[in-house]
Amino acid sequence: MTSHVMPTAERKVRVDLAERSYDILIGPGLIAAAGKEIASRLKGRKMAVITDENVAPRYLEPLMASLGESGIEAVSLILPAGEKTKSFEHLIPVCEAILGARIERNDAVIALGGGVIGDLTGFAAGIVRRGSRFIQIPTSLLAQVDSSVGGKTGINSAHGKNLIGVFHQPDLVLADTAALDTLSPREFRAGYAEVAKYGLIDKPEFFEWLEKNWQAVFAGGPARIEAIAVSCQAKADVVAADERENGRRALLNLGHTFGHALEAATDYDSKRLVHGEGVAIGMVLAHEFSARMNLASPDDARRVEAHLKTVGLPTRLADIPGALPPADRLMEAIAQDKKVKGGKLTFILTRGIGQSFVADDVPSSEVLSFLTEKHPR
Amino acid sequence: MTSHVMPTAERKVRVDLAERSYDILIGPGLIAAAGKEIASRLKGRKMAVITDENVAPRYLEPLMASLGESGIEAVSLILPAGEKTKSFEHLIPVCEAILGARIERNDAVIALGGGVIGDLTGFAAGIVRRGSRFIQIPTSLLAQVDSSVGGKTGINSAHGKNLIGVFHQPDLVLADTAALDTLSPREFRAGYAEVAKYGLIDKPEFFEWLEKNWQAVFAGGPARIEAIAVSCQAKADVVAADERENGRRALLNLGHTFGHALEAATDYDSKRLVHGEGVAIGMVLAHEFSARMNLASPDDARRVEAHLKTVGLPTRLADIPGALPPADRLMEAIAQDKKVKGGKLTFILTRGIGQSFVADDVPSSEVLSFLTEKHPR
Ligand SMILES: NC(=O)c1ccc[n+]([C@@H]2O[C@H](COP(=O)([O-])OP(=O)(O)OC[C@H]3O[C@@H](n4cnc5c(N)ncnc54)[C@H](O)[C@@H]3O)[C@@H](O)[C@H]2O)c1
Ligand SMILES: NC(=O)c1ccc[n+]([C@@H]2O[C@H](COP(=O)([O-])OP(=O)(O)OC[C@H]3O[C@@H](n4cnc5c(N)ncnc54)[C@H](O)[C@@H]3O)[C@@H](O)[C@H]2O)c1
Ligand SMILES: [Zn+2]
Ligand SMILES: [Zn+2]
Repeated sequence: MTSHVMPTAERKVRVDLAERSYDILIGPGLIAAAGKEIASRLKGRKMAVITDENVAPRYLEPLMASLGESGIEAVSLILPAGEKTKSFEHLIPVCEAILGARIERNDAVIALGGGVIGDLTGFAAGIVRRGSRFIQIPTSLLAQVDSSVGGKTGINSAHGKNLIGVFHQPDLVLADTAALDTLSPREFRAGYAEVAKYGLIDKPEFFEWLEKNWQAVFAGGPARIEAIAVSCQAKADVVAADERENGRRALLNLGHTFGHALEAATDYDSKRLVHGEGVAIGMVLAHEFSARMNLASPDDARRVEAHLKTVGLPTRLADIPGALPPADRLMEAIAQDKKVKGGKLTFILTRGIGQSFVADDVPSSEVLSFLTEKHPR
Repeated sequence: MTSHVMPTAERKVRVDLAERSYDILIGPGLIAAAGKEIASRLKGRKMAVITDENVAPRYLEPLMASLGESGIEAVSLILPAGEKTKSFEHLIPVCEAILGARIERNDAVIALGGGVIGDLTGFAAGIVRRGSRFIQIPTSLLAQVDSSVGGKTGINSAHGKNLIGVFHQPDLVLADTAALDTLSPREFRAGYAEVAKYGLIDKPEFFEWLEKNWQAVFAGGPARIEAIAVSCQAKADVVAADERENGRRALLNLGHTFGHALEAATDYDSKRLVHGEGVAIGMVLAHEFSARMNLASPDDARRVEAHLKTVGLPTRLADIPGALPPADRLMEAIAQDKKVKGGKLTFILTRGIGQSFVADDVPSSEVLSFLTEKHPR
């Protein structure tokens, strides 16, 4: 139907989930090409676009124009930016807007924004008419390499982050790599921590490539596309093997046990710490702890820290502005996140760069004494 | 583990959905036996019970006592009764209560009540931690034979009924047939319309049995258990064949296209019409319309009407108190419910008692002139 010349630089990653399989397209200019890409894949011609106040002024108009050119009638809703938007308070108007737009079986809901907009909108799409088609147009690096892939959606509760939601796979992901040019350097770096994570999990050669090419990734162009494509492929492989998160998908949590505890310890205050920064510090801690347990060489931990530091990420507890609670309080936050069974924790540890594994018998006493060393009062 | 002697009268229906299969137990006294039944099937020992203000004074305490005796620690939340409770307003505290009770992987959320409580609670269970275990203890006849089986959950939106929800199968359904003794006669009759529906869909011998035994069904005892078991089995069969409602499941909508239009036409005012009453009138209309289309004998329509009238259900538009909108407005409501494609409607029609089928080419002009005859201004 629609003839469409692929920009040479564009990459495609397929997420293989039987009848729920979908494509992730990665390249510059995909927002402006969204209408064509969607119209060639979906039958519906009615869409509802959900975005936030930072993204809207830059990308909403080009997106709406592109949809319009392809004969897609779209309405849009602009929400406040920030983690607080992942709440029932904002979910309700999103659901009502989708219903008001009379989105039907073949139509779709579009998330245009970072992980916050993607998680909230995906959840709304998952529950409107017990599941509506859903397209992700992630505009932050974190959303392009992580949150837009895999089908986890949701909002936060007073009882904790991401506690309410559904698994709802998108029908298409359009990662416009040029849109990242307007992302703040700090948010770009935070997303980069997740990119490096894929190398550290099981791709030592990718980590090495990043050590050499990170500046090109930050600058944009083919290296950025390559890094995002490798990351999406890595996540897609894990998701395809383990859609509902029982086994291998846990590896994606490398650095996240410590990271989540630090996010909680800083009250999710993005001025002090954003998620990817917590992950950066958490990955260094996971490598150091693995060295302490004689699983990996301390050189690997040093190498991880050196690289993350070079790109400008925090790597130590002391890099977090403001006072942190004592080690035993951090340990409590870890125990809340992961269940402790008979004094043992499940943790992602490593035998070296790109050799992570799930350890389900880590003594919590060891973690506590490690944290106490790292963070003496 | 728990030794438990099945009361002789108790019946069991298995809903066959591979790894999501579950049992429906049907019999008197199941609320008092809930602790044992649950403890012998689920590993968790923490539960959250959601109920409404009519059901709570009668059945909450016996349920909590039964859970307690089996070592299950439970919290409860009592909501207002009525369709308005199926809303975000009430969903939010239900989700927070479940999270506050620290319900984990093997624990469960329990719905104790009619279809309103079941739909709302099932939805909450479906989204808390992206899916928590869920037990239905339906206390209305409609909930026992229809809403508690099949996994459809949800709430209403300003844009229409049941527009927001998920598919979330229960882990167990306990239909305490003695609990129906306190249901108002009108609500019992409304649920009975759905029982008769299963006969009219494809079980002519069951419809005949109901014609003879309906008084025993209303009175309670083995005939009631039998009627509920046959109904649950009928719904379970359809659901197992078609979990996500693409084909055969549509037969369950016999009488519902007209019925929904009447519910909308009476503003969902339960003083004028409750769902099962709309279905009763709708089933008579579906049979009459089928006769008019020369598909079935008018005798069948008369037989359906006679039986529903005998049990005390409304069967004609004129039985609805208050003024109804004109036929063309009813037709609009039908067109909203079902999509009209090129002047054709999908409708459940019949070739006679127990011979329903999905007709997807019913001319809407025929429906309109039929309604105009039935409901002249
Ligand atoms: N679903 C999943 O699997 C998954 C995985 C990881 C993280 N997450 C979730 O993702 C969220 C974090 O995602 P995030 O880091 O993208 O946060 P975010 O959506 O808040 O975006 C970060 C900031 O960047 C702005 N922004 C986004 N794109 C921009 C652009 N192109 N130009 C300028 N500004 C832009 C946003 O407005 C926001 O202020 C968290 O809520 C986290 O829980 C979900
Ligand atoms: N999920 C599905 O597949 C499905 C199917 C059909 C209907 N439904 C939904 O079910 C709802 C209707 O269910 P319902 O008719 O049970 O309504 P309901 O839950 O409102 O119950 C009807 C009334 O009976 C009361 N009640 C319930 N059990 C009682 C008892 N044992 N003793 C005394 N009073 C009792 C309730 O408090 C209420 O006032 C509708 O919202 C409808 O959309 C869902
Ligand atoms: Zn992360
Ligand atoms: Zn019904």
